[in-house]
Amino acid sequence: METLKLYDFLPSGNGYKIRLLLTQMGMPFERIEINILKGETRTPEFLSKNPNGKIPVLEIEPGKYLAESNAILVYLSEGTEFLPYDRFLRAQVLQWLFFEQYSHEPYIATSRFWISILGKAEEYRVAIEQKREPGYAALKVMENHLSKHTFFVGERYTIADIALFAYTHVADEGGFDLTKFPAIQAWIERVKAQPSYISITQEKFMNYCYNLG
Amino acid sequence: METLKLYDFLPSGNGYKIRLLLTQMGMPFERIEINILKGETRTPEFLSKNPNGKIPVLEIEPGKYLAESNAILVYLSEGTEFLPYDRFLRAQVLQWLFFEQYSHEPYIATSRFWISILGKAEEYRVAIEQKREPGYAALKVMENHLSKHTFFVGERYTIADIALFAYTHVADEGGFDLTKFPAIQAWIERVKAQPSYISITQEKFMNYCYNLG
Repeated sequence: METLKLYDFLPSGNGYKIRLLLTQMGMPFERIEINILKGETRTPEFLSKNPNGKIPVLEIEPGKYLAESNAILVYLSEGTEFLPYDRFLRAQVLQWLFFEQYSHEPYIATSRFWISILGKAEEYRVAIEQKREPGYAALKVMENHLSKHTFFVGERYTIADIALFAYTHVADEGGFDLTKFPAIQAWIERVKAQPSYISITQEKFMNYCYNLG
Repeated sequence: METLKLYDFLPSGNGYKIRLLLTQMGMPFERIEINILKGETRTPEFLSKNPNGKIPVLEIEPGKYLAESNAILVYLSEGTEFLPYDRFLRAQVLQWLFFEQYSHEPYIATSRFWISILGKAEEYRVAIEQKREPGYAALKVMENHLSKHTFFVGERYTIADIALFAYTHVADEGGFDLTKFPAIQAWIERVKAQPSYISITQEKFMNYCYNLG
């Protein structure tokens, strides 16, 4: 089998989802850093891989690309312990993946991007303020669920946890106060205790194949 | 088998996705109108069905609920002609479903909501203006793809087409000019020519069970 290639940006939570899953699956991959701050997702070469101009992109074999972090998570986890086999449980995983991309990421990840990646909290002050209420609403939905469950689906660690963990555990970098959410905090610790856990900006992975290019 | 119940709002494209698929599958369902303009997704009763307070919600059997339109599409279409069996094709369907919810719906559907559902184009003028560029960017990604393909995945009509069709074919109601996108327009006609096609606000469905409650 070809070694998987991951077009990625190290501070990205969406990229981290894939790194974390691949590492926990014990699957080797080559990581190719794409600096989104330098327009590297807007080059003709990158747009030929993902016309939507976003990382992460997984190159499954030469010329065969898959975009959208949560679609990549599902693709990789099918048939593994990270995605339930039961049809309704699998649907619930998808429900949380779409919740993450629609009701969570646009508020919590975007605030972190402006404040901690770009370092432009003042310039984006009004926009950041507008993200507060819907961001906290998403955290409340999670807190409510986690106050009754150990993980998001089927009381087991799945890609639903990976997808929601990626930006939630660094929500403070976007100015969100997690101390108000004890169930989320306990869940974060449960995720961090999973085998082969790696942190979001960890450069060296188990099975990590350094990009020599 | 229990009759499926769909908690829905007739003008909603996200609700329409499910109505269209169920009708094309020939699957009976009961539609329960939830008026989102009257706060009916914020009642304790509705929040017990979907804590995120959004329609559509599918009630699979009494007390067993599934939210997020695109998760519902996948759940219903598994094992049918509307979702490919091949693993990579299925991943591509998911890629387009996440594209729709992240890069398309928040711009194109939201503009339509403000202009044509709420009828408040003037009040939301600045916000609508901000949605123009990313909305057209999403349409360009679609146009580019459809200039080389008959449908989004595998040259066959799938739930990827249903998900993207729902808000694209009424994008003009949000002030987007589709005359610039000939490949999208031709694809819209191909979708409308599919067997058992219904329009977005069609009240009577094949197999439609009227909610007597």
